[in-house]
Amino acid sequence: MAPSFAINGDFPGTRVTPPSHTGRFADVYSEVQNSRIGHALPLPSVLKCPFVIVDGPQSTAAGNPDEIAKLFPNLFGQPSASLVPSDSPPLHSNRKLKLGVVLSGGQAPGGHNVISGIFDYLQDKAEGSTLYGFRGGPAGIMKCKYVELTSDYIYPYRNQGGFDMIRSGRDKIETPEQFKQAEETVQKLDLDGLVVIGGDDSNTNACLLAEHFRSKNMKTRVIGCPKTIDGDLKCKEVPTSFGFDTACKIYAEMIGNVMIDARSTGKYYHFVRLMGRAASHITLECALQTHPNITIIGEEVAAKKMTLKDVTDYIVDIVSKRAEDNYNYGVILIPEGLIDFIPEVQHLIAELNEILAHDTVDEGGLWKKKLTDQSLNLFELLPKAIQEQLMLERDPHGNVQVAKIETEKMLIQMVETELEKRKQQGTYKGGFKGQSHFFGYEGRCGLPTNFDSSYCYALGYGAAALLQFGKTGLISSVCPNALFIYVANLCAPVEEWTVGGTALTSLMDVERRHGKFKPVIKKAMVELDGAPFQKFASLRDEWALKNRYISPGPIQFTGPGSDDISQTLLLELGAQA
Amino acid sequence: MAPSFAINGDFPGTRVTPPSHTGRFADVYSEVQNSRIGHALPLPSVLKCPFVIVDGPQSTAAGNPDEIAKLFPNLFGQPSASLVPSDSPPLHSNRKLKLGVVLSGGQAPGGHNVISGIFDYLQDKAEGSTLYGFRGGPAGIMKCKYVELTSDYIYPYRNQGGFDMIRSGRDKIETPEQFKQAEETVQKLDLDGLVVIGGDDSNTNACLLAEHFRSKNMKTRVIGCPKTIDGDLKCKEVPTSFGFDTACKIYAEMIGNVMIDARSTGKYYHFVRLMGRAASHITLECALQTHPNITIIGEEVAAKKMTLKDVTDYIVDIVSKRAEDNYNYGVILIPEGLIDFIPEVQHLIAELNEILAHDTVDEGGLWKKKLTDQSLNLFELLPKAIQEQLMLERDPHGNVQVAKIETEKMLIQMVETELEKRKQQGTYKGGFKGQSHFFGYEGRCGLPTNFDSSYCYALGYGAAALLQFGKTGLISSVCPNALFIYVANLCAPVEEWTVGGTALTSLMDVERRHGKFKPVIKKAMVELDGAPFQKFASLRDEWALKNRYISPGPIQFTGPGSDDISQTLLLELGAQA
Repeated sequence: MAPSFAINGDFPGTRVTPPSHTGRFADVYSEVQNSRIGHALPLPSVLKCPFVIVDGPQSTAAGNPDEIAKLFPNLFGQPSASLVPSDSPPLHSNRKLKLGVVLSGGQAPGGHNVISGIFDYLQDKAEGSTLYGFRGGPAGIMKCKYVELTSDYIYPYRNQGGFDMIRSGRDKIETPEQFKQAEETVQKLDLDGLVVIGGDDSNTNACLLAEHFRSKNMKTRVIGCPKTIDGDLKCKEVPTSFGFDTACKIYAEMIGNVMIDARSTGKYYHFVRLMGRAASHITLECALQTHPNITIIGEEVAAKKMTLKDVTDYIVDIVSKRAEDNYNYGVILIPEGLIDFIPEVQHLIAELNEILAHDTVDEGGLWKKKLTDQSLNLFELLPKAIQEQLMLERDPHGNVQVAKIETEKMLIQMVETELEKRKQQGTYKGGFKGQSHFFGYEGRCGLPTNFDSSYCYALGYGAAALLQFGKTGLISSVCPNALFIYVANLCAPVEEWTVGGTALTSLMDVERRHGKFKPVIKKAMVELDGAPFQKFASLRDEWALKNRYISPGPIQFTGPGSDDISQTLLLELGAQA
Repeated sequence: MAPSFAINGDFPGTRVTPPSHTGRFADVYSEVQNSRIGHALPLPSVLKCPFVIVDGPQSTAAGNPDEIAKLFPNLFGQPSASLVPSDSPPLHSNRKLKLGVVLSGGQAPGGHNVISGIFDYLQDKAEGSTLYGFRGGPAGIMKCKYVELTSDYIYPYRNQGGFDMIRSGRDKIETPEQFKQAEETVQKLDLDGLVVIGGDDSNTNACLLAEHFRSKNMKTRVIGCPKTIDGDLKCKEVPTSFGFDTACKIYAEMIGNVMIDARSTGKYYHFVRLMGRAASHITLECALQTHPNITIIGEEVAAKKMTLKDVTDYIVDIVSKRAEDNYNYGVILIPEGLIDFIPEVQHLIAELNEILAHDTVDEGGLWKKKLTDQSLNLFELLPKAIQEQLMLERDPHGNVQVAKIETEKMLIQMVETELEKRKQQGTYKGGFKGQSHFFGYEGRCGLPTNFDSSYCYALGYGAAALLQFGKTGLISSVCPNALFIYVANLCAPVEEWTVGGTALTSLMDVERRHGKFKPVIKKAMVELDGAPFQKFASLRDEWALKNRYISPGPIQFTGPGSDDISQTLLLELGAQA
């Protein structure tokens, strides 16, 4: 079978020529970073020949189409678009363009390649075009802070991790004044189009901008790109968000190492908290890659209405059973957002926020009487350190900082306490030592895998093509499932990937906020009847008691494993095929 | 230039044939793990032809030779040994052997390859020999728990991380009864030799065993192997301990990722604590690989007699200066053992242990009057959470658990407090957000790099050769500096490495414990006038204010960077050359 990606120049990929002066990075790049700059990127074949854009059927919304239609009168219902090869592309398809690009929100490996893809499209298909990069996220649009991206400027960032080429930011374009500022900027720069690289919120924002510009008969079009390591921005036509593949592989490398450590030492339970606040995709993917003894999936905890005690007992039961087999060690994966999935914890926090805002908290603990019974029971169940954290660490609005709670340490203490009880009852005879880990920042800026490198490049190249053809309000969608080959861990070769754009309004629903309907792209949660969770669920009992650890090792850019895709994508594509 | 290691079979390395049944690991190994099993290992050329062993001059001890001579009457002064090619090796050089091997102490990548090396030597040069692996560390010797290591048994562990083949343990063979048990075991198994794979303590223990067996005219010889990720077991003839290379590269990958994240976000200071309690080699090596803004080296802190306040001020000064350039982010490396290097902290802890053992601690804080002024000042300087940790977390003997103090979090709080002060004084106008990390367990069981794979294999192969020739009380020493080529990050090709054994007594000094002299192999600390520290010291001011981050990326097993050796080894070999 042909390899999916261009390696060692055996594939006619895009390999750029280095600029004459290479001073900027030659002394600050490692050998591996340097070697990645020259990595040849394959393109889907449709992007390598003349093409036209074919519209699909009218679209609707993910929910409440009537409200979405009201919020997006100019864009609602527009079809998704596909690029198809054509011998007679329209005349406008090589006109010069002025485009802008912005990175929005948290980092994800591959962002630089989206930008390279846009740039290379303009070089290849619209000579004489200009690309501006807005600095520091959406604030750069509002404040008109930008840099013109040239071949030399982009070169050292090719296939590199991070968002440092133009940086990102978390500001949103929300108020009428802010929309006005954005309008002024794109008019000042005479932009034909803008590419917004971001997550669900940023893409919603992109669609609002597209609607705004269209409503004013401005020429500026807006295209979004799906970015988030959390993997929670996806739909049928957008099979995955970029960065998820790389981040999960980095975490899985470390989990695998810790597993071998656990088995070699034989005396530690490693509790690993993984990034992913809203959805547990990262945790699930890492579980599928490494086979830990215990994995907590937030969506399942919520669906089963589990309490914190239930989660603790689930862990304690497995630890006890393993002790009977003399396994006093193991690895446990926990999603960062776990406690957000437990209703009783949410109730407790709401009550605490109320009490702390209005009452004085006495040393004697009389204030606790204001808690409901359920919340009081839960509070008393919590380890002392967590109780203190809940009472003391507050955000500027005086609210409990849920994000600061080190869930993995909390669970270690709760498991310890429960095991101690069982020891006294004589039902547990093992030894338990917990070690806590949090894997997060390490994964957001790693060197993108071959998959993310190619995927992002195609997303960017495709986004520019959509703008060239005057499309707006779409999210760039590249699908690796055209010819899905369920062999090894490979998807179809890049050449066979489909390229197009999906109507952003078709991903939307509304939420009621401050008495108004707000459009939102619903986060894609782990589906309990989806193929990835089902595979995990069918194997976890075996993983719990037997040790089926897999250590994926460090990401390789050539050789065995270098073209693997994530298990989540593999299984989801497989289920579709 | 010829590559140093066998890649893609272009080098006549040792590539083993898989056993007929591959069931055990085929379904539990990742693609990368699987590919590493088949990685061909080169051998120093002296090990590939007939050789003899040539003794060097008489040795002495690292300190107090008279006392070492008394403690090792049979072994003291013995020469180090070198393997040299010979057309007429002695007759005994292919006699069958019965050997044992044991892994002692914490994991380090490459341990399995030492065992493979011993095994393959026996297969290649002493057909019909037997190798026993003692299970669970030195306790396995005392309890005579072992497994016979066969070709099939060893196969799946080739080039794999971890110590899970036979596990390790931290027990020591110390008392006369324990020596007796060891004696019985080696007699029962009729061992010609024993290889002890471990750190400084374990190698001291190996030498005591060698002395004991020799004093009883037993035939069992003992050879040590230098293992520890901390890199603090080394001398001129033993240029590095195995595992250091891999562990540092794993940590450097993560530090590099965090650096790109810091630069992309522009708002976090990442405080990274790194393993290495006694010496700061890991921190120094990671600094040389990644160029962080601030690096604290414990040995320098001790030499300069810095206080905790001094360390804090050093960090705060750089953070303030960076803020003037609008850099409100950065990366700071801290060795795990930092506070062990600060005398005032040691005094405080000693006083606390005394007070907590004998007095009651009153809520009002009257107990603090028992502290000396210096200790009281320090205590009051510490963040509240650390104060509580010092008072509450005790080991089974009631002592403060220094190892549990999260130094990186402590420093974040102290830096925060000091910056707040400066802000109020108007001398600091930046923004500061600290993020803490601890990189430790992730590095101990990773897949060994090409360097560690080859180095360990040669160490094991050489250890068996030394036993074959009747040597005892030596540590296997493999030197990559025979023909040092100071080009790129390469040491001499494996073929040109020298192989031999260094008298363990020559590494020893004595310490006075319980009124008796005890032999110890002194830990090799970071030398402030050594080449690695000097290079770091010459560059750190530039790294502090400019951003010279290097992101090494994930360890590659083929292609660019895959044959790099550690900066520490490179610089130390370079200084010698």
